[in-house]
Amino acid sequence: MISVETAVHLIQQHLPDWGTETVPLTEPRYSRLAEAISSDRPYPPIDRIMMDGIALRWAAYESGQRAFPILGVVPAGEVPPMLTDPQACFEVMTGAALPQGCDLVIPYEVLEIRDGMAYIRHPEPWSPYQFVHRCGSDAPAGQQVLAAGTPLHSPAWGILASVGQTEVRVQRRPRTQIVATGNELLPPDHVPQPHQLRLSNAYALMAALKRQGYAQVSIIHLPDDPVQLATHYRQASQEYDLLIYCGGVSKGKFDYLPQLWRDQGVEQYIHGVAQCPGKPLWFGVDHRQQTAVFGLPGNPVSSLVCLHRYVLDMPPLYARLATPFAFEQPLTYFLPVKLETTKTAELIAHPRPMHNSGDFLALADSDGFLELPASQAVFAAGECYRYFPWS
Amino acid sequence: MISVETAVHLIQQHLPDWGTETVPLTEPRYSRLAEAISSDRPYPPIDRIMMDGIALRWAAYESGQRAFPILGVVPAGEVPPMLTDPQACFEVMTGAALPQGCDLVIPYEVLEIRDGMAYIRHPEPWSPYQFVHRCGSDAPAGQQVLAAGTPLHSPAWGILASVGQTEVRVQRRPRTQIVATGNELLPPDHVPQPHQLRLSNAYALMAALKRQGYAQVSIIHLPDDPVQLATHYRQASQEYDLLIYCGGVSKGKFDYLPQLWRDQGVEQYIHGVAQCPGKPLWFGVDHRQQTAVFGLPGNPVSSLVCLHRYVLDMPPLYARLATPFAFEQPLTYFLPVKLETTKTAELIAHPRPMHNSGDFLALADSDGFLELPASQAVFAAGECYRYFPWS
Repeated sequence: MISVETAVHLIQQHLPDWGTETVPLTEPRYSRLAEAISSDRPYPPIDRIMMDGIALRWAAYESGQRAFPILGVVPAGEVPPMLTDPQACFEVMTGAALPQGCDLVIPYEVLEIRDGMAYIRHPEPWSPYQFVHRCGSDAPAGQQVLAAGTPLHSPAWGILASVGQTEVRVQRRPRTQIVATGNELLPPDHVPQPHQLRLSNAYALMAALKRQGYAQVSIIHLPDDPVQLATHYRQASQEYDLLIYCGGVSKGKFDYLPQLWRDQGVEQYIHGVAQCPGKPLWFGVDHRQQTAVFGLPGNPVSSLVCLHRYVLDMPPLYARLATPFAFEQPLTYFLPVKLETTKTAELIAHPRPMHNSGDFLALADSDGFLELPASQAVFAAGECYRYFPWS
Repeated sequence: MISVETAVHLIQQHLPDWGTETVPLTEPRYSRLAEAISSDRPYPPIDRIMMDGIALRWAAYESGQRAFPILGVVPAGEVPPMLTDPQACFEVMTGAALPQGCDLVIPYEVLEIRDGMAYIRHPEPWSPYQFVHRCGSDAPAGQQVLAAGTPLHSPAWGILASVGQTEVRVQRRPRTQIVATGNELLPPDHVPQPHQLRLSNAYALMAALKRQGYAQVSIIHLPDDPVQLATHYRQASQEYDLLIYCGGVSKGKFDYLPQLWRDQGVEQYIHGVAQCPGKPLWFGVDHRQQTAVFGLPGNPVSSLVCLHRYVLDMPPLYARLATPFAFEQPLTYFLPVKLETTKTAELIAHPRPMHNSGDFLALADSDGFLELPASQAVFAAGECYRYFPWS
């Protein structure tokens, strides 16, 4: 069996490049930028006033002049006027463009305004362009302001709007179908017999994918019937970029899905990873249609852990184990934890181990999971490990 | 001016209770549970087999019997049969229900199966119900499995499906309109004159709200015209639960919005908070329609910071300042930072100060912001402060 690291590497290497798609500004959705974004004009685009006050010529002030006739008021958003009289001034508002011919702003705090005149009451050694945010000082026109690959959090959408990007190319989220297999499964609106279970994995996986900006996610439930599964595969591999199989497949039964996928022309890259839960993980690619196929292990916790570790692209964190934990087998162990954030800026992970159940109920009080390396059997309190929050 | 803490308290105290709404399992969306969820039946609902092997009577094994005729195979999802012969056994698959009359499971690893018989090759001191996950041991029927208020991350959706909740009551996200005011603003698809700006705040705010599960968010741009603003308010306060005003309002102009809101019957709770940026923050409630009104300061960074601090309900984190920072005024300072996550499970905040611009460009390289308390002017490297990640 391969290691978790090898599995991650194989997936990165073979996962198809699904290209890009365009998202409009009006329907922001989480993904990563697929193109670099540059400034369309200098920022700020004007010499921008930073304080309410008057704008004048520095030379006049420097020569000792302290009373200035006011030619008018310049609010933000208006075409800046020309200072026709070098001994005069304009009243200017924060955000306005510096009037042409002016190179100094003096704030109201040191002024008296009376009868159309501004009097400087507290002269100070002002320098030219003080309280002026110079045109282009944040970015000249044509400078990269967002790199390709930037995650699209809210400030990025503000930047895109600022520079006039009404739509943006992002990494395309694959059209995804979750295929729940298992004769013992019923839809959630059914009342199961004691030996039956409701379909639940698929809904947890869908919720996780949607939160990460996967807009097209559907669910289908199929019985454990190779003919139906093969028929479905041929159609679905044309319509979807990503097929995520999961559901109540016991060990014996699970084995025919890999054979079925291989028979359908899917190239297998992973079958079995040295991890718990999630040992039977399968991954392959149908190169004819660029369709990726994940076979997630049947139990709910395995499938959700594998989705987060291998499919979602979430930034890595580390958390400190609050209490000791032991796992004897030479497998990477994924341990559900409750996260505590301390005032000393630490992330503390409180184990919420699964006991003997693979059921979702055990995750009710967890925020994510730790990845405990296969090379250790005993994990002491205070040690730090990779932490994956639930999407 | 009131403190940030007082402002948070006033908002919590006066923000209307917008009740609950129903979200279907098939359209998961981030919010918090508005009801407690209980198990509909015992979990597991059966005595569940945990290993592939045989199921038999412990008394027969204990009496020394080591060869058992196999009556049949029990896969997961089938009605468990009755063990009619107390000296016989069933082959059982992981996830299957324990056949009636059996109280012991012995895994294949210690068995030999030949000619319809199971032979125990490596007898061990098995105890009754070993490798059986007992019915109801995770939760009896009727036990609370999710508390009201639980954030709806992916495992919660799996639990909801498990217990048969095809829809769920969540805290209702308010119908929200973002009102951008300012004559200098143009829609993002226009080419502005140098003294004009594109509407950008509103798009950043909308992206932040949508990521938190606000499904109904619209944007409107209105000129700085009290008559139009009043007309709009009367209509919008009927249609929306939450009105977030922002946009290029200079200090002088901004003052007429509070008067306009008060004239329209909005009860004012906050006008001005001892913080930078965002000093002019306004908050009130129109109690006739349960409409909340936020007046966010004009500059883009202020409006986004205020949205995260006062409107969004995001869990608190703490991060450690990587380099010293100083801010002399007795105001809470919101400092944009780039977050580093260390292998020692620490969150380190690298300041990305705003310099003299309130523009979004400065946030391109930030992940969120620190809240630096008003009581300090100097913030040493290594000190920890509250951290808010960008939505």
